[in-house]
Amino acid sequence: MGDEDDVFDVIVMGAGPVGLTAARRAARGGLSVALVEERLAGGECQFYACVPSKALLRPVELAAEVSRMPGLELRGPIDTAAVLARRDETVFDFDDAVLVRLAENYPATLIRGRARLAGPLRVETATRDGGRRSLRARHAVVVATGSDPAVPDVPGLREARPWSNREATSVRQVPERLVVIGGGPVACEMSQALHALGARETTMLVHGDRLLSRMEPFTGELLADSLRKSGIDLRFRRLAQRVERPEPGGPVTVHTDDGQRIEADEILVGIGRDVAVRDIGLETVGLQPHGPIKVDRSMRATGVPGGWLYAVGDVNGRSLLTHMGKYQARVCGDVIAARAKGLPDNRPSMRDIVDPASSPQIIFTDPQIWMVGCTEARARAEGYPVRVVEYDLGAIEGAYLQAEGYTGRAKIVVDEERRVLLGVTFAGPAVVDHLQTATLAVTAQVPLDQLWHVVPAFPTVSEIWVALLEEYGL
Amino acid sequence: MGDEDDVFDVIVMGAGPVGLTAARRAARGGLSVALVEERLAGGECQFYACVPSKALLRPVELAAEVSRMPGLELRGPIDTAAVLARRDETVFDFDDAVLVRLAENYPATLIRGRARLAGPLRVETATRDGGRRSLRARHAVVVATGSDPAVPDVPGLREARPWSNREATSVRQVPERLVVIGGGPVACEMSQALHALGARETTMLVHGDRLLSRMEPFTGELLADSLRKSGIDLRFRRLAQRVERPEPGGPVTVHTDDGQRIEADEILVGIGRDVAVRDIGLETVGLQPHGPIKVDRSMRATGVPGGWLYAVGDVNGRSLLTHMGKYQARVCGDVIAARAKGLPDNRPSMRDIVDPASSPQIIFTDPQIWMVGCTEARARAEGYPVRVVEYDLGAIEGAYLQAEGYTGRAKIVVDEERRVLLGVTFAGPAVVDHLQTATLAVTAQVPLDQLWHVVPAFPTVSEIWVALLEEYGL
Repeated sequence: MGDEDDVFDVIVMGAGPVGLTAARRAARGGLSVALVEERLAGGECQFYACVPSKALLRPVELAAEVSRMPGLELRGPIDTAAVLARRDETVFDFDDAVLVRLAENYPATLIRGRARLAGPLRVETATRDGGRRSLRARHAVVVATGSDPAVPDVPGLREARPWSNREATSVRQVPERLVVIGGGPVACEMSQALHALGARETTMLVHGDRLLSRMEPFTGELLADSLRKSGIDLRFRRLAQRVERPEPGGPVTVHTDDGQRIEADEILVGIGRDVAVRDIGLETVGLQPHGPIKVDRSMRATGVPGGWLYAVGDVNGRSLLTHMGKYQARVCGDVIAARAKGLPDNRPSMRDIVDPASSPQIIFTDPQIWMVGCTEARARAEGYPVRVVEYDLGAIEGAYLQAEGYTGRAKIVVDEERRVLLGVTFAGPAVVDHLQTATLAVTAQVPLDQLWHVVPAFPTVSEIWVALLEEYGL
Repeated sequence: MGDEDDVFDVIVMGAGPVGLTAARRAARGGLSVALVEERLAGGECQFYACVPSKALLRPVELAAEVSRMPGLELRGPIDTAAVLARRDETVFDFDDAVLVRLAENYPATLIRGRARLAGPLRVETATRDGGRRSLRARHAVVVATGSDPAVPDVPGLREARPWSNREATSVRQVPERLVVIGGGPVACEMSQALHALGARETTMLVHGDRLLSRMEPFTGELLADSLRKSGIDLRFRRLAQRVERPEPGGPVTVHTDDGQRIEADEILVGIGRDVAVRDIGLETVGLQPHGPIKVDRSMRATGVPGGWLYAVGDVNGRSLLTHMGKYQARVCGDVIAARAKGLPDNRPSMRDIVDPASSPQIIFTDPQIWMVGCTEARARAEGYPVRVVEYDLGAIEGAYLQAEGYTGRAKIVVDEERRVLLGVTFAGPAVVDHLQTATLAVTAQVPLDQLWHVVPAFPTVSEIWVALLEEYGL
């Protein structure tokens, strides 16, 4: 019966970390699952974004830590070849066999090819060599196709084939002269990493007047200080007006809107991402073929009769962060399994209760920066009765013991009516692991009077929590 | 009127971190405060324990981190002189002027001398040069005299003038050969630090069959592996039977109970602490002159008519940890101020609600180790319906990105009836900042179903929380 469809309980389009998680949870719920992936299982995050970028950034951070600790000295600059070799390890030398085995153990069936919706509960896959396969889902189809790096409309830019996070994180030969367009997370992280690994002339062109424009202003200021101190040429309120690259792979010239020209060996664009909905067949199920797929809190796409379509991760536009996508995928996999079996589908774990605009987010630079919940500006704009407290992280004894000349800052945004935290932002060396505490406090809406009894150990940087609360008036 | 007493609203006996905190909070409540301190304001913790020990340990930890990161290499061994110089900075070259100024700004009056209770609301101070001063408190006296290092009853040991944490943390010349008696936090931390800073032959004699006997067994095992790998001679179920030191400051010989003898340049005892109640006049107010001062949850000593006596920190025996003492001191300073002014004294911040046996505690070794709440063994002994989950920290992608060959473990103890965490223990490189999250979860008794929605950022070690909860069954 060669023409008969392959039938699964669930079909997941895209086997990035989010698709994999949805598949794993659905399989755990007893469903048969197909995962369709055109490129590498593990996705952008595993091979071309989060993972390799952290492999490049961690040695840079550690070298900075050493420079702040008397009694230790590095033999020389970072050994770029060794760092790239470790990067290759973290991405399994760009081979997804490990992830394929993982998926098979869920168990899930991995199908290589590009997935396209083809009407209700139908997915067609196409391989590059022309192979086609029709799949049918008994219960649900999950779109987890992620997003692609955005490229701004600058004459000559596309033709110059600029780097995105993909080429930057998979770099084999660090360009000596680099121009970076953007001032957000990817632009900042990759500028710092590549500069430390050999891009001696690094120029950042930032459209606005600060870095990390969606975060508290002090974060961008501290980061700008650090990038400048390391020698990066940081230019605010600057646009690339025209790009020239006469020879593919050769030098590139960027003309900026103040009439300057910058010669470089490579150009990197990090201005954000577009959801990956192009040509995935949304119109075959009655949805608009562009823009994010709107979902409810169970990750079910709205406006699809029968309620069989789900979308998780970047593609639903809620929060373009891997961990939020994985969270949505846990919700989604569980709720699909429950609905398939006629079990209650309203257990606490089966709804995304996180305000997507309040997702925890980290910039893995030195200083490290994170936020969860909302900024002061947003809290005020939304009409909350707000009080904020800021505190110098370097004044905490534990910070001083961790690093000579520790510079950092913490800020809480308090809802004065309910006396809970609306938002928390930290910036400072190696502050990343404090985020989880803030996320817990914000998510569980722990009252300040209760936080007061959460005793931080001495002498740790966590004593910042007592300092903030005392400053608040507790 | 030279004979008239000096009168203050509150007299605090002892100006360590705990006494200082009580004074600060009472002063903030509008009371006049005297602080009496015989030695350095800032206390043991600032000058001879927590602070300098972390100044010695941090470079050791950082060197270990570098050794686990390809692409970075240290020029040579740790520069001990530089580390000791930084240690001196962290203890202000053993000068307490900074802390005196801090206290004066509360404001509090610092009185140099040894404090002794002399009946209800009376304190007498004596300086070494024979000066005496009688003080009277209008509202309260707070005992914050701390604790002293314990020395076991081993023939010849006292005469050999062994090191305690005081001498170890203020070391000027690291002994080449060191014997350490004990297997608890101080013994482990100082063995690792001094060994890395030059004590090439370091031998630890541990009475029991594991390190950190009050914590989950895997903590001591991981730490023992690390200490042994670094070259420390770790001997379990061994006692020192006799100690000889013919010349003061000369070589010392330790005879162990298996008939061996160890020659060393110095001997360090780290077996615990005794509460400092000797000769502080407890009998003048009707209390037994030995043992900890029993207090209620407002830190008021029980059995003292009039209820004017308080005890905070080590001396009340609840929890011999600086941060718990400071927490008690915040409670105590606030409650004294409220009672003095006839204000409500039962606000949430005016009671120590933390089970003292469940205090968060860190061992600042490599691997770092911490726990909060109770161990599995204690939870079972106390009759809780317990389920535990353990997880390999090294299996978390964020851990692997942080260090090559990351080895660590995390464990949660769940109360199955209420589905809350009773205890959490982590052991692994640089895990210290995760403690605060666990302390919040345990203290606020956040239900597991709520923890499930606290999304850890990718790729961080905090993803261990999802791993633990998934392993539990969520």
